[in-house]
Order: sequence, then structure tokens, then C-alpha cells
Amino acid sequence: MPTASPALVIGSIGIDRVATPFAEADNLLGGAASYAAIAASYFAPTRLVGVVGADFPSAFLRRYRKHGLDLAGLQIDPHGKTFAWSGKYREHFEGRDTLEIQLNVFQNFSPVLPAAYRDSPYVMLGAIQPSLQHHVLDQLPRGRRRPFVLADTFDLWIHTTKPDLLRLLQRIDLFVINEDESLLLTGERNLVLAGRHLRQLGPRIVVIKKGAHGSLLFHPNGYFSMSAYPVTKFVDPTGAGDSYAGALIGCLAAANRTDFASLKRAVAYATAVSSLTVESFSVNRLSTAGRATIDRRYRELVAMTQL
Amino acid sequence: MPTASPALVIGSIGIDRVATPFAEADNLLGGAASYAAIAASYFAPTRLVGVVGADFPSAFLRRYRKHGLDLAGLQIDPHGKTFAWSGKYREHFEGRDTLEIQLNVFQNFSPVLPAAYRDSPYVMLGAIQPSLQHHVLDQLPRGRRRPFVLADTFDLWIHTTKPDLLRLLQRIDLFVINEDESLLLTGERNLVLAGRHLRQLGPRIVVIKKGAHGSLLFHPNGYFSMSAYPVTKFVDPTGAGDSYAGALIGCLAAANRTDFASLKRAVAYATAVSSLTVESFSVNRLSTAGRATIDRRYRELVAMTQL
Repeated sequence: MPTASPALVIGSIGIDRVATPFAEADNLLGGAASYAAIAASYFAPTRLVGVVGADFPSAFLRRYRKHGLDLAGLQIDPHGKTFAWSGKYREHFEGRDTLEIQLNVFQNFSPVLPAAYRDSPYVMLGAIQPSLQHHVLDQLPRGRRRPFVLADTFDLWIHTTKPDLLRLLQRIDLFVINEDESLLLTGERNLVLAGRHLRQLGPRIVVIKKGAHGSLLFHPNGYFSMSAYPVTKFVDPTGAGDSYAGALIGCLAAANRTDFASLKRAVAYATAVSSLTVESFSVNRLSTAGRATIDRRYRELVAMTQL
Repeated sequence: MPTASPALVIGSIGIDRVATPFAEADNLLGGAASYAAIAASYFAPTRLVGVVGADFPSAFLRRYRKHGLDLAGLQIDPHGKTFAWSGKYREHFEGRDTLEIQLNVFQNFSPVLPAAYRDSPYVMLGAIQPSLQHHVLDQLPRGRRRPFVLADTFDLWIHTTKPDLLRLLQRIDLFVINEDESLLLTGERNLVLAGRHLRQLGPRIVVIKKGAHGSLLFHPNGYFSMSAYPVTKFVDPTGAGDSYAGALIGCLAAANRTDFASLKRAVAYATAVSSLTVESFSVNRLSTAGRATIDRRYRELVAMTQL
């Protein structure tokens, strides 16, 4: 898509080991930035910012390149090991437990944007700690040339660095958060009230992800509710939310618009993309599905939700 | 609506006491048939079959008459007391416990259809025990003049009289069931698979209710996913599913059609109607809202789900 604006994705990159109630796998390409950047790449030229160690498999780099990712912002630390995460999903996928985290090179990660990235008009800040998200924003233009910024978060930051997170909300355009976290952060008991509350905290647009129950969009011009794609071959939810957010920023970059209609379309595409992610471990299904499969799921979603 | 076909609703009628985490109330008009018949009455002339005792308040009868319900099928037992139910919702409305049940006149209830009801082209069998649902079907015409039959159920019958329930599924057209019950009855782990599985057990059409997460329609001509209406004044979920099913049968009777497009529209109207039910105890909000409010919520639902 030569006319699309570029999207910048920043976040964690890791090597995962995942156990579900039905299967397990290790040495998986993981991390929010991996899922998000590959998802975004289906829609717009995508720039990746992150850090890996000397052990990062060349197959994973090839996977990035297959999607045409711009890797000028990928730091490779020759003296360190890649961030590693191991998690296990509970029965019925009701929550998951982290079994092991090795921060490794991620411990001292300070994201530096290559000069050529600073004009990125669409930016996704993955769910890294809010101080790092602020650090990225500090490197981007302000005023008229400021980019459209999407940020994601997760419950750890709500518990440990809430003031930083609240300050971040005043600097971004689109906040993506999951159901439970939206209630935790706002203290509301109801997702509709939580969405409205979050908009009052700063971001013009809010998306609440409800997993298998779809997602809700709160935009200045209205409210939109999107059903989930009916997945029947559910394998592993890891990265679903990250690929959702990545598809969102990619779609908006491709359209170069953030009006209500464009956001609704982006939410439907993000739903289609994340439905692929959960059908395999790691980015495998997401990466091999191809744009035609995504477009077909988008059309199916339209058919199954339109009167 | 003078051209609408009549709808027949049969089910429990009770006097409820309800406690939520935030409030409680007693001497409430309750029972699946009360909610369903009032909901149906917004769309089609509605016939009510049920039983009450001598203690049934005249204000409740006036409420029925206000909605134009045909009460020829309402048995009033002068020697008995009305079915009484008391329940308490757990924190965050995650499940509820029955504190007390007095079956009273319901114990020996044997639904008898007045002769004039036997031509009803649209019938809803509320979630009474399957043997009584069969008993009603035995009084209705077979063959070319057989009615369109919707049945609801609840988990007690899955646990205690599953063979009767499975036999019922082969005699009905539309099965309405909630999320957890659909998984319990089919043994599936996934609602899409559960919906398909239920259709294989008999009913041509299946609707799975997901409460605050909307509902799913499985029809021979396709799958449809409807979001919930974004309720912000949530008071009491009692009767939401019953009024959903009642609105469904009422809408179908009004349209006198059961094609995919009519079912989708009926599902959207049922969503609008049940969103009113949860905004008060008992049928209060449902009964006072009026058709114009239902139409407005329907239009809002369309707006918030259409791309």
C-alpha cells in the first residue's frame, strides 16, 4: 500500500514459553511489539522499535523481514539475552499465571527513535512501563506535526505506576485497554461508564477489548460495539490484544484518517486480525494468514453483524 | 398492531422478593410468563397461560390488562397461594442464590389451553419443566397448521430431566438458552460450537443469550451476533432473559415471518426490550417504557453496531 502513512510500533520483544490447558510450546517469537508490528504490516509500512539479545534467532528476524518491517529501530545487544517469558493459562482460559520472567536486555531498555522515525504520523506505544512510553513521546514532534498516538497498558502499571499512567493518558489520542483493566483503572462497575470515564482522563478515543465478547469503541462522535469473530479453533490467546492494537494503528495509518467511520472500520479489521492470532501459538497463524484471509474475515464480520 | 398474528405465552407467574448487592424489594410481580407476555404485548396481541392463587394482587391483574393481555388462559385457584420466589444476587451480579421457593398453586399446575388459543400461530414455552412443555405441545395442532414454537429452559431441567428436554428439542422451532446452559447441555467449550450442536439436536433456530455481552443467533441461513444495549442504570437482571424471549416471539408474530432477516430484527428488538427490564425491579421499567422508547433503543442499537 504505497499511499499509506507509516506506523511506528514500540514495545516488548520476547521469547515465550506458553502452556494452555490443551498444549504447550516453547522458543516462540513473542512480545507485544512482535504481534503488533506484524499485524500493522498488513495495512501500512511499519517501523519497529525494541531490543533483543545476541541469542535472538535469525528465523525471527526473517519473520519480521517477511512482513517488510523497518528494523532500523531494533536494537540488538550483543552482550545480552533476549527478554524471556513463560506463562500458563488456567482451565477454561480463565486467567493466566506468569511462571517465569527474565528481563535480560529489556531491563535497561531505553527506546531511542532513529531520526528517520521521528516523522511517523501514527505511533503505537505497546504496554511497556509508562515512563518508557513518556520517553518515546518526548522524542516525537509536538504542536502541528504531532503524531496520532495509540497506547496500550496492563494491570501491573495500574497497580505500580498509576500516576505515570494517568499523566500518559493526557498525552495520547487513543487508549486501548482490556475489560478488567478498564474497571480497575476507573473504579467503575460498568464498561460503558468506564469507557466514558477514560475519555475524561485525556484520550479522545478509547477502545475496551472484551476478548471473546468483542470490543467497544468510544469516540467523540459516538459509541460502537463490535462482536468477536466466532473462532472455533482456539489455541492460545497470547498476543491477541497486541495484534488487535497493531491492526488498529495500521488501519488508521493506511486510511490516514481518525474519524468515527474510519475507527469503526479499523475496529472491525482489528477483530478479524486478532481472531487469527488465537488460532495458533505465537505469530504463526497471524503471519501466514495473508491479507486475503483478513479481508475475508472482515467481510464475514460485516455480514454477521449487519441487520 | 391489528395485522399481527397472536402470540401465546405460557410459563410461571410468581410473587418475587429480590436482593441485589445494592438494593432489595419484595411483593414484586414476577415469573417468566409475566415478563415474556408484557414484552410480547408491545408487538402482537398476546395470550397468557399460567396459574395464580387467590392472593394474587389485583394491581398485578391490572398491569396485565394495561398491556391488553388476553387472560382467558390464566387460571386463578381460589384455594391456593401464588408461587413465591426469593433470590439474592452475589457481588458483581456473578450468579444468584435462591433463598426460598414456595411452589403453592404451581405444584399441581397442568396447563390447559382454552379452545380459542389452539390456533395460536406463535407460541412461547417459558422455562417450566419439560413435561409441562410437552403437555402444551400435545394440545396444539400438528401438520400443516402447527404453530411456530419457541422454548426456553434453565439449568435445573438439564440436570434433572435431560431426556425430556432433549425430546422437546425435536418438537420446537426456536430454542432460547443462556451461555452457561448452552455449554452445560452440549458439553462444548465454545458458544459457536454449542449453537451448532444445539441445532443438530432439533430446533431449526437457536439463540444463545450472553447477558451484558449480547446474543448469538444460529439460523439455517446464517450466523448473527448482536451486541447488548449499553445499560448504565443496572438495577436487577431478573426477567431479562424472559422478556428477551417474549419480545422475540412477539416480533415474529407481528412480522408473521421467521426468515433470517426477520429473526435478526427480532433479536435486535429483544435486546432493546431486555435492556429496559434490567433498569428496575420487576416489570416496572419494562411496563412503563412504552413502544416509542423500545423503538428508540432499537434505532440506537442499529446505529452502534452498523459500520
